[in-house]
Amino acid sequence: VVGVSEAGYDLKMLPKVSSGEAVEIYTGAPLPSGADSVVMAEFCKRDGDRVWVSRPVACMQNISLRGEDFKAGELVVARGVKLKPWHIGALASLGITNILVYRRPKVLIASTGLELKQLGSEDNQGKIYDSTRPMLKALLKSINCTVLDLGILPDEPAYIAEAISKHLDSADLAVITGGTSLGLRDVTPEALNMLEESKLVFHGVRMRPGKPTGAYVAKGKLIFMLSGFPVASFIAFKVFIEPTIHAMMGSKPDPQPTVRAYITRRLAKPTGVKAYVRVRIYRSQDGFYAEPLRLTGSGILSTLTRGNGILTLDEEVEGVDEGEEVEVLLTQAFE
Amino acid sequence: VVGVSEAGYDLKMLPKVSSGEAVEIYTGAPLPSGADSVVMAEFCKRDGDRVWVSRPVACMQNISLRGEDFKAGELVVARGVKLKPWHIGALASLGITNILVYRRPKVLIASTGLELKQLGSEDNQGKIYDSTRPMLKALLKSINCTVLDLGILPDEPAYIAEAISKHLDSADLAVITGGTSLGLRDVTPEALNMLEESKLVFHGVRMRPGKPTGAYVAKGKLIFMLSGFPVASFIAFKVFIEPTIHAMMGSKPDPQPTVRAYITRRLAKPTGVKAYVRVRIYRSQDGFYAEPLRLTGSGILSTLTRGNGILTLDEEVEGVDEGEEVEVLLTQAFE
Repeated sequence: VVGVSEAGYDLKMLPKVSSGEAVEIYTGAPLPSGADSVVMAEFCKRDGDRVWVSRPVACMQNISLRGEDFKAGELVVARGVKLKPWHIGALASLGITNILVYRRPKVLIASTGLELKQLGSEDNQGKIYDSTRPMLKALLKSINCTVLDLGILPDEPAYIAEAISKHLDSADLAVITGGTSLGLRDVTPEALNMLEESKLVFHGVRMRPGKPTGAYVAKGKLIFMLSGFPVASFIAFKVFIEPTIHAMMGSKPDPQPTVRAYITRRLAKPTGVKAYVRVRIYRSQDGFYAEPLRLTGSGILSTLTRGNGILTLDEEVEGVDEGEEVEVLLTQAFE
Repeated sequence: VVGVSEAGYDLKMLPKVSSGEAVEIYTGAPLPSGADSVVMAEFCKRDGDRVWVSRPVACMQNISLRGEDFKAGELVVARGVKLKPWHIGALASLGITNILVYRRPKVLIASTGLELKQLGSEDNQGKIYDSTRPMLKALLKSINCTVLDLGILPDEPAYIAEAISKHLDSADLAVITGGTSLGLRDVTPEALNMLEESKLVFHGVRMRPGKPTGAYVAKGKLIFMLSGFPVASFIAFKVFIEPTIHAMMGSKPDPQPTVRAYITRRLAKPTGVKAYVRVRIYRSQDGFYAEPLRLTGSGILSTLTRGNGILTLDEEVEGVDEGEEVEVLLTQAFE
């Protein structure tokens, strides 16, 4: 035994190991030049300056090679990958302290609707609290967006157009909720039409809920119009806004948890319309069951808080029979 | 037609509607007393102070009932539920601006190991960058913990014990990486043994990677010992620390995305050990495939950055045959 190598020792200070020689070495320590394998301490017996080895050892055994994890010049994290803890670890292992990332998208958000009052308001004139905007803000933040909140705008096309126009330059995308149906007081399309360089992209989708979803482009920025009803705007967010934001960032969404479950009762739907049914998944002895919550009621938030899954039924599907197996997107933990 | 009701109108100011009478009403507007159904504008024709209705309408049709979403006294969000955007929406719809939440758990973290250097260090003495601690910090933050980082501690039991002891009171949990194997320089158990009111919970687990995982309790706080190898400590985090933190917060983890895939080559493993195999999932014409990355090498972070899934093989399993279908936990998006 001609020396010792401990973690953090300088390789240049270590003895050269020749045939018939060994050094005492610890986990993480550099391998002295000339040595070509490591034997575990359990299989060695020290006897003064000699060591008895009780097991055969293969060449290069118990040695970690330089570059065995990442080789010089190798791509470690590709553009568009969402950084996960193990990417942080991989970058740290290579001594990389700074990398270029895309900045968070800035999203302008506003509500319209005479029936709305701001959370915290003491107004008792038959108004309802604006719940869609706080929910959308939380959804946007959950996919790493920065939110510029314009609050509740009055139902005046010129006022809405001016408010959006004033802030559109400092945002990457805008979302307006309410006023997008076909009623007399639904002024959002009219307002967006008044914007400079404005162009309708689409308005009205064969989906349920979320039928009045639409979008304009103005000054190169997409402006989504969502239903004021919270469940409809949640579905439209998942179907339109989330994929748009991922496309803008060049990133892929995280994988979505799904479960296969038996439907507890027959569901009928019109063909030609894509349906997003809120369901409650529960575990039973013979597998998972999906109980459909009410199909209608795009304002009924309790279908999301009591439910834990979304079942998508395609345009051509007429319905699902009781006991049929379906695949459900899980939105939260279940019993 | 005896009047108009618009969103935000005061119910007390609206006319009472008798038999043979109607009011013009807008989305979100209060229903005047006496009225019992609403007809969509598309099916009405106004003729002076009269209206022609071209479709039958059922009693209570197109009316949203007070309390149809949440009833007075009803539980909206149960204790321990992780707040999602729709819970924010549901609370907002009820005018609830403040709720009691559990505070974020504070986790003390430290590395040990003579071979480690701090990220950003210029030390060239055969040391490696500490990558496990930055990864664990990111993992802890991803489940909403606050991290108290003690950095790299010297491999001296008394020093480690003092550093932990000094900060344990201000933390809910502690995690130490490195020095937990059976080598001469593996001093973490000895250090934790020196803590006041210290008790060993377990040390050594029949799992791969992550065999040297262990835990002590001192002053009522759990202190986990993890391998210094990043992949081993990642697996131990998922298997031990994440469930512990959820249990401490009384919350359920989010559902985990999984996929069923065919394994591309035979995998053998010893029985009596639970194995966590890093795999790369890819889509093919006839389904999903799982390519096992190397089983050994608990320091090889590239198995996590190149891979996108973890396959768990239970203790009694001897292996998996090529082409066998397995369920894989997805860790990130895949092609």
